[in-house]
Amino acid sequence: MRASDERAALSRRAVAEALGTGFLLMAVVGSGIMAERLAAGNFALALLANSIATGAALVALILAFADISGAHFNPVVSVVEAIRGGITWTDASGYTVAQMVGAFGGVAAAHAMFGLPLFFASHHVRSGSGMLWSEFLATFGLLTVILGCAQKRPSAIPYAVGGYIAAAYWFTASTSFANPAVTLARTVSDTFAGIRPADAPAFIVAQLLGAAAAAFCFRWLSAERRMEKGEILHLGSADVSRSANEAID
Amino acid sequence: MRASDERAALSRRAVAEALGTGFLLMAVVGSGIMAERLAAGNFALALLANSIATGAALVALILAFADISGAHFNPVVSVVEAIRGGITWTDASGYTVAQMVGAFGGVAAAHAMFGLPLFFASHHVRSGSGMLWSEFLATFGLLTVILGCAQKRPSAIPYAVGGYIAAAYWFTASTSFANPAVTLARTVSDTFAGIRPADAPAFIVAQLLGAAAAAFCFRWLSAERRMEKGEILHLGSADVSRSANEAID
Amino acid sequence: MRASDERAALSRRAVAEALGTGFLLMAVVGSGIMAERLAAGNFALALLANSIATGAALVALILAFADISGAHFNPVVSVVEAIRGGITWTDASGYTVAQMVGAFGGVAAAHAMFGLPLFFASHHVRSGSGMLWSEFLATFGLLTVILGCAQKRPSAIPYAVGGYIAAAYWFTASTSFANPAVTLARTVSDTFAGIRPADAPAFIVAQLLGAAAAAFCFRWLSAERRMEKGEILHLGSADVSRSANEAID
Amino acid sequence: MRASDERAALSRRAVAEALGTGFLLMAVVGSGIMAERLAAGNFALALLANSIATGAALVALILAFADISGAHFNPVVSVVEAIRGGITWTDASGYTVAQMVGAFGGVAAAHAMFGLPLFFASHHVRSGSGMLWSEFLATFGLLTVILGCAQKRPSAIPYAVGGYIAAAYWFTASTSFANPAVTLARTVSDTFAGIRPADAPAFIVAQLLGAAAAAFCFRWLSAERRMEKGEILHLGSADVSRSANEAID
Repeated sequence: MRASDERAALSRRAVAEALGTGFLLMAVVGSGIMAERLAAGNFALALLANSIATGAALVALILAFADISGAHFNPVVSVVEAIRGGITWTDASGYTVAQMVGAFGGVAAAHAMFGLPLFFASHHVRSGSGMLWSEFLATFGLLTVILGCAQKRPSAIPYAVGGYIAAAYWFTASTSFANPAVTLARTVSDTFAGIRPADAPAFIVAQLLGAAAAAFCFRWLSAERRMEKGEILHLGSADVSRSANEAID
Repeated sequence: MRASDERAALSRRAVAEALGTGFLLMAVVGSGIMAERLAAGNFALALLANSIATGAALVALILAFADISGAHFNPVVSVVEAIRGGITWTDASGYTVAQMVGAFGGVAAAHAMFGLPLFFASHHVRSGSGMLWSEFLATFGLLTVILGCAQKRPSAIPYAVGGYIAAAYWFTASTSFANPAVTLARTVSDTFAGIRPADAPAFIVAQLLGAAAAAFCFRWLSAERRMEKGEILHLGSADVSRSANEAID
Repeated sequence: MRASDERAALSRRAVAEALGTGFLLMAVVGSGIMAERLAAGNFALALLANSIATGAALVALILAFADISGAHFNPVVSVVEAIRGGITWTDASGYTVAQMVGAFGGVAAAHAMFGLPLFFASHHVRSGSGMLWSEFLATFGLLTVILGCAQKRPSAIPYAVGGYIAAAYWFTASTSFANPAVTLARTVSDTFAGIRPADAPAFIVAQLLGAAAAAFCFRWLSAERRMEKGEILHLGSADVSRSANEAID
Repeated sequence: MRASDERAALSRRAVAEALGTGFLLMAVVGSGIMAERLAAGNFALALLANSIATGAALVALILAFADISGAHFNPVVSVVEAIRGGITWTDASGYTVAQMVGAFGGVAAAHAMFGLPLFFASHHVRSGSGMLWSEFLATFGLLTVILGCAQKRPSAIPYAVGGYIAAAYWFTASTSFANPAVTLARTVSDTFAGIRPADAPAFIVAQLLGAAAAAFCFRWLSAERRMEKGEILHLGSADVSRSANEAID
């Protein structure tokens, strides 16, 4: 009986991931279309609107779905959560499928709002080593921010992620996709936020490497702290526990 | 005696709804007037100011009135609250009247600040299927954000709603009215934020459908979790309760 | 002994008020100067920078000084606090003097940063009934936001006030001074944020009326709730207490 | 044994400081490059993007690293923390080295993303007494904000610092470096955010003086409160303790 229960629950959590990722893509693509139409050729103004809209939407969407599915909206986040043991690998697979479906659905929904074809291939070139280095750093930073908040201040994650992505639109040369589902869905939108299909695979490889580096980095940072807690238990001297506490603080 | 008590209390809560909705309309219409006057024809800049002002005002106003009336400022929110059992249907009627009065009062107050007639019919055309699809999605998203936060993190609702609306101004083709009282009040403002009276009814129908879809969707999502809690009570096996907890988390 | 203690404490709290109000004026006037210099004649862009800088500074400054002096930075806030019994009238007088000193000091500090005379009379005309109506509403709204948060969510006041003022820069015709100390200090700055000395007295009268209206309005709103709590104590019937709780929620 | 433990812990905390400071510099320099490239000569728009990106990144980065290293990212913050006894002087030295390494690494990382040389000397002139007065005030204000939040609302520091810096970019003539590591690292970036190497030493002196003034000022403000708490303990009269409580509130 347990398995069917779990599958049922997963189906609901997957719907939450699909809805959240769908609205995220609407925010990214829709605000890009609106911004480009109104900005009269001023790309700084368009990116400012696009980045503020995406960051603000992320705050709202993560707050809304965090208590249902965890509000990953991003396959690399789900995979890192599975590695950390927060969700099962079955969950991570289901989440990834839901995120992909939601992402493409969100792009289509945005296009329909603005009177565009549901899907049309992007011609927006985003290639070169600077772009890949950008995606590596953008994803490394995103996972660093999530993992840094996850243990002691999880309720701050919506604000941390929203702030990080709004900033990373500006400080990376690629405008910070940092999400394989988002990357693939943006290949079918020939708008401000689009990316040429040919450029997507390298983006995704860079994102996976950035996420892996962040997960490795945080394991090292937190392993140390766990080891020291162990020392308190085994040795119990006031001196050692003080130094350990200082390390933790 | 109880009935008169309740009516008294409702009258105060209704005043809070009128005040809050009034200031919300001042923010929407007033900032639109100021932005259009200063932006020298750059509509992206005007919408950026309009969206930031509206989102920031929403954060402040929801924080200010949440503990008095719940800070709905929106008939579809009050109706969904009545369906969920948070307020009575009498309350919801009173709230809706107060929101309408406040919304028109807020538009008149904004016009008076900027030396315009108190009311004058808008000529701003907002029609077509893209607009209605936008209003459906905008309202679906707004209710999703509110219902998603309502159970476990109600104190985050002001930030979630402010962020969502600031973003939705950009990612929907209609600039996200998502509120029947706001829609009707904006028909009597021939300014940046206005909407032609003839276009309002379809907007409101789309908003009602979007809100109903969100309420239905969340009932399904949370029904599942409630059922599983029931199973813990009836069956009590460690296995089942563990799977249920996983589902809840 | 008590009197001298209290005076000592007040002197420190007054320094906090002076510092906070000083930095607030630096933010208002300094960001106005920078924005006007860089915006190349686009006043929407200048006001956007000015409003975001002021709102963000208010969040930081209220967080920083709230636990020392209450972070009023505004004589009408101190007067309303004295009426509510939160501070003594002696405190309110000391606060007002400190706010005035801080405000003029902040203007001078900003001018010195940008290579301008420490004080020079503004020629920025801000007159007419629309302006006074704006200041009435701006101050009414500011006090409403503060009083609305004060009882149950005081820790949200920094965000509520920062958000409100950033929005009110846009939705009022006067750009929302809402503060007599700020108004007087801005008369000696012939820059973007300035106001002609001749226009200041009417602004201040409008602000006082707006604050008084908000205080009166909230006394009515909360008196009702207190009376109902009394009824629970005196009558104790389940029915009445339920209706009272519904009123409070 | 204790010493080696502590060093091990410090090494991890130092890595956190280097990572955080690195991403901060990426945000400052990277968003400056992107903004200047897209803004078509409108410096107000470029600074708006630069300030929003820096403020939003600071919120995310302080949230992410606060529980590991305290998220100083700034030698003057580490020194003031050492004076206050929050960290040892050995820690402060290690932090400073890590912040310098991270800052230069972050600049190089940003340059690599945008296809620029890893390091190239800035020609951006930032000199004169207005600039130094700006840096004094900017750093005084930054430390005031941190010290003001540190005792009773440390969890608000990320938002306070992010808001303060975003505002201070606009209200100081120097755009608020307020950080010696950031200042030095920006000398090797001939971009929007750069500073001529010759101008850096005076900036750093002004920053140190501003930080010292803030530390002195807060010691005076909080010493008073501590003394009064002592009086409660020694005298215990209801009268005195009430006045002390009023002073603390």
